[in-house]
Amino acid sequence: MKIYKRKIEIKTSSRVEFIDITKRVLDIVKDSKISEGICYIFVPHTTAAVTINENADRDVIRDIISTLNNLIPQEGNFRHMEGNSDAHIKSSLIGISVEVSVAGGILELGTWQGIFFCEFDGPRNREIWIKVLGE
Amino acid sequence: MKIYKRKIEIKTSSRVEFIDITKRVLDIVKDSKISEGICYIFVPHTTAAVTINENADRDVIRDIISTLNNLIPQEGNFRHMEGNSDAHIKSSLIGISVEVSVAGGILELGTWQGIFFCEFDGPRNREIWIKVLGE
Amino acid sequence: MKIYKRKIEIKTSSRVEFIDITKRVLDIVKDSKISEGICYIFVPHTTAAVTINENADRDVIRDIISTLNNLIPQEGNFRHMEGNSDAHIKSSLIGISVEVSVAGGILELGTWQGIFFCEFDGPRNREIWIKVLGE
Repeated sequence: MKIYKRKIEIKTSSRVEFIDITKRVLDIVKDSKISEGICYIFVPHTTAAVTINENADRDVIRDIISTLNNLIPQEGNFRHMEGNSDAHIKSSLIGISVEVSVAGGILELGTWQGIFFCEFDGPRNREIWIKVLGE
Repeated sequence: MKIYKRKIEIKTSSRVEFIDITKRVLDIVKDSKISEGICYIFVPHTTAAVTINENADRDVIRDIISTLNNLIPQEGNFRHMEGNSDAHIKSSLIGISVEVSVAGGILELGTWQGIFFCEFDGPRNREIWIKVLGE
Repeated sequence: MKIYKRKIEIKTSSRVEFIDITKRVLDIVKDSKISEGICYIFVPHTTAAVTINENADRDVIRDIISTLNNLIPQEGNFRHMEGNSDAHIKSSLIGISVEVSVAGGILELGTWQGIFFCEFDGPRNREIWIKVLGE
């Protein structure tokens, strides 16, 4: 079994923003020389997340963001004093990791799927930890 | 390390519908001859999802569906023009993959747990990609 | 490839409660003697979940719980007769598994991240199934 690890560093520019990281994850998978296995994408933050959704029409992402903001507004009756409780909640709802199959040395994604880093409390410097296992 | 892959094909019949795929996933695990490892269940679509929940009383699934539809109605103030933004959002909230431990050559699930494919924009022809890793 | 499995048993004391299990998961990873790999944390219940979020200020967890309860109140127009449909829905929204990288024989978590068992229909006796794969 081979294991390959790398970190992606990104700088977000808005409070709430989804950034397509598919290409950067794919480059790491290619560098790993692992042809068959699993790629883990892990966000080591508590006010961010990672999701897989449509990468064709950017309005899909805009609708996801506006719906999340409507369901869980930043200004709520919260006890945590940093003003970002909504971001912590969104992080747990979307989740901080996804895994994607690796086959033939690349990511096995559906036709319309992209991998998005989800910033809920930016702008900040963020990391995404990638781990590829396989052979 | 052994790796075994198979696709499940299903045809959904309603716009929103959860389909119990536990038996079909289990059959693939048995075919894999892998006795100890992990089974990845991945949905390559952006308006569907997969979840694990109760498989005894079908009213549980009905309640999950009606609650999701109440929280995120199909008719919203959306920018994406295909009329299925609600489905994309539900997909990211529920998630498009789950993993289940394989032990003794079968899936290790809790007593009441079943694996459900979640259709949010049907009826459509759908795939679920299964990957079993282990030994 | 080495595989190591253990169960965590916990007794919850409220209907809705998040319990930090990071230390107990870490102890299992150490016992496994696996230095590089993946740790799977799986909840075999349909009215509970597991999430990773901030372990510093307990008000973050309080805000997550109160927001979930506001979005999905226990008393809804539900068909399932056990009075816990809200718990099933929360379970599918948060999810019943997470995976964390193992490196240097310990869990690779972000600075503020802890692993929380999420009880949505307690008090009950619960299990969490841990599986470590690697070498």
